[in-house]
Amino acid sequence: MNEHDLVRELVEKNDSKIVMLVADGLGGLPQQPGGLTELETANTPNLDALAKQGVLGSSVPVLPGITPGSGPGHLGLFGYDPLEFKIGRGALEATGIGFELGPHDVAARGNFCSLGPDGLITDRRAGRIPSEESFLVVEKLQKVSIPGVETFVKPVKEHRFVVVFRGEGLDGRVADTDPQAVGVTPLDPQPLDPAAARTAEVAKEFVRQAREILADEPKANGLTLRGFADRPALPSYQDLYGLKAAAIAVYPMYKGLARLVGMTLVGEAKTLDEQIDTLASCWNDYDFFFLHFKYTDSTGEDGNFAAKVARTEELDAAVPRITALGPDVLIVTGDHSTPSKLGSHSWHPVPTLLTAESCRTDACERFGERDCLSGGLGMFPAKHLMLQAMAHAGRFGKYGA
Amino acid sequence: MNEHDLVRELVEKNDSKIVMLVADGLGGLPQQPGGLTELETANTPNLDALAKQGVLGSSVPVLPGITPGSGPGHLGLFGYDPLEFKIGRGALEATGIGFELGPHDVAARGNFCSLGPDGLITDRRAGRIPSEESFLVVEKLQKVSIPGVETFVKPVKEHRFVVVFRGEGLDGRVADTDPQAVGVTPLDPQPLDPAAARTAEVAKEFVRQAREILADEPKANGLTLRGFADRPALPSYQDLYGLKAAAIAVYPMYKGLARLVGMTLVGEAKTLDEQIDTLASCWNDYDFFFLHFKYTDSTGEDGNFAAKVARTEELDAAVPRITALGPDVLIVTGDHSTPSKLGSHSWHPVPTLLTAESCRTDACERFGERDCLSGGLGMFPAKHLMLQAMAHAGRFGKYGA
Repeated sequence: MNEHDLVRELVEKNDSKIVMLVADGLGGLPQQPGGLTELETANTPNLDALAKQGVLGSSVPVLPGITPGSGPGHLGLFGYDPLEFKIGRGALEATGIGFELGPHDVAARGNFCSLGPDGLITDRRAGRIPSEESFLVVEKLQKVSIPGVETFVKPVKEHRFVVVFRGEGLDGRVADTDPQAVGVTPLDPQPLDPAAARTAEVAKEFVRQAREILADEPKANGLTLRGFADRPALPSYQDLYGLKAAAIAVYPMYKGLARLVGMTLVGEAKTLDEQIDTLASCWNDYDFFFLHFKYTDSTGEDGNFAAKVARTEELDAAVPRITALGPDVLIVTGDHSTPSKLGSHSWHPVPTLLTAESCRTDACERFGERDCLSGGLGMFPAKHLMLQAMAHAGRFGKYGA
Repeated sequence: MNEHDLVRELVEKNDSKIVMLVADGLGGLPQQPGGLTELETANTPNLDALAKQGVLGSSVPVLPGITPGSGPGHLGLFGYDPLEFKIGRGALEATGIGFELGPHDVAARGNFCSLGPDGLITDRRAGRIPSEESFLVVEKLQKVSIPGVETFVKPVKEHRFVVVFRGEGLDGRVADTDPQAVGVTPLDPQPLDPAAARTAEVAKEFVRQAREILADEPKANGLTLRGFADRPALPSYQDLYGLKAAAIAVYPMYKGLARLVGMTLVGEAKTLDEQIDTLASCWNDYDFFFLHFKYTDSTGEDGNFAAKVARTEELDAAVPRITALGPDVLIVTGDHSTPSKLGSHSWHPVPTLLTAESCRTDACERFGERDCLSGGLGMFPAKHLMLQAMAHAGRFGKYGA
């Protein structure tokens, strides 16, 4: 039996509130073997108190040894097997800039490039055109008009932009047009499946019109398209768990990921404190709350151990305002590890904490990577965390008689 | 997404060196409940030092409670799901005597038997004919000649031998000819699938010619064939991991298993010390090194607790020569447990140790079965160990954006 079918079969409704606080890139590494990680170094009295009354474990985002990007990392936490459910690159890029993909959309990543008089690529990144210039060029592309298809062009950064085609019968299986080389022409969009023939034609027409519009641009007079992708077919939180879910995030990427699973974006918080204000203000309107905290990841990516420690302490300080709301289940975890020692995402398991009236408290007294190894949740695939959340919220019936 | 496809997608190359030291049958049991296992009893200062700086875990070779043979045990360690990839008995027997199976080979295990004047089996093992006699009989069978097929007959031990048929279009799905009883005739080789019809005919012709050749043998005047099998279709280490892999083993079985996954057999070491000489001498030529140490298994099989302890200490003493080479990732594990208390392979998880600059050190300070239970690798399927090896060697890119 498929795990999602099992979930659907067992779901029961009640008035419980579940909070999942995701500290992005939470897991870390000691600076020297045998030392303490960022989380173990941080002074976290509030998280430690939760660890004492709750149950700990180590979340494996995808598989042992596999380092996830933000997409697979969050899909796992949300209960979707990241090897089964994939978000294509174009769809993720659109999601990351806050574009709300619809069911009939195909998104692609666009790069401006420079073409010589012979049409050959002279610079694959249009001289790394600054964002403020590039945004004006993107604006011009709004004029493109293709019959039967709605076209959206949105800036990302520097030479990068996103194109979304919206219309019935579109299909993301179209090959990249970036030849990954200079001195050659961009490729024509080619269908990778007969079902994508029309989408390839649409993309071709987009490129044709765009080339005309861009003809006199000094740098960005050409473009390539990559990572064509449909909106991923993810069952929604409502459909799967019967949960009215709210996402309270600051950054577009995480808002977008939450929206892909049917969460409602609530508020316009810019700080953790404002996020908790939002949480309090919408407390009665939702069953499930996804709170995303970015800075444990960004400081890790910066390779800044001390800053990651400080951000972890900032997170800890916010905990009492969350517990004061009285969630039935409170989970603190991360979508992956981002050890400042590596300055990048990593494969290491993610420390995870769950408190609920019905949790079986383990012997752990602190929230840290090593403590989590002896925790009652064990070492578990991230995709199973939502099963624990639902169970501890009393939202699952019994399987079988 | 299939795990091997994921591996292929993520593989990146670098100059790292991975050493996997497999102490066959490493895991053990205490002689009395509550006592120490062989590994826990052994004085292993070098392994303990690695445990302190590295990360431990417990490897489950196939599934909890499942005792593997050497084939599935090693396939798991090499990253092949032993329930998906199987080595048929004939192929394993050929592998075990060092026969290099080709892609068009079908191998079967042969037993000499004694036939009465009426052609009925009087002894299924030809009176357990001694090896030295049997080897001469095998020699006579080299005369068999079948058009379009190359035939190899190799002695194993006593009444046992191996037959390999080599030719286009052969197929291992042929039924055993051993009736498992005396007083009846050997069965004719029968195809279990239409695709194996020709192979069954080839086997029948082999048996016909062999019977003529053996007609005057006093004991071994008949034969049965069992475990027909193709060479298993295992993706190679080069194909799967992008690794140039060297196998440094003493015994034919382990050399054969390594060869089946495309490792290069290096050296002709007879002792662990010579194996490490070989390791040092080919250090610059390979990325991955499989070192096989047999005696933790053979002493376990002998039921000799003290001897297994001594062999474990011998292994420990060799560790500094390996670490001196500076491997980026060093793994010490076993293909299964062989507790001397049971005198056989067992299902118990296998103590496993990994050291690397990027490993997340756990609280373990010794290498032993109980320590491994609180280790940072957790309890994991053996087939995932190579994912950890690749990750810690920096040989995997990120999954998803």
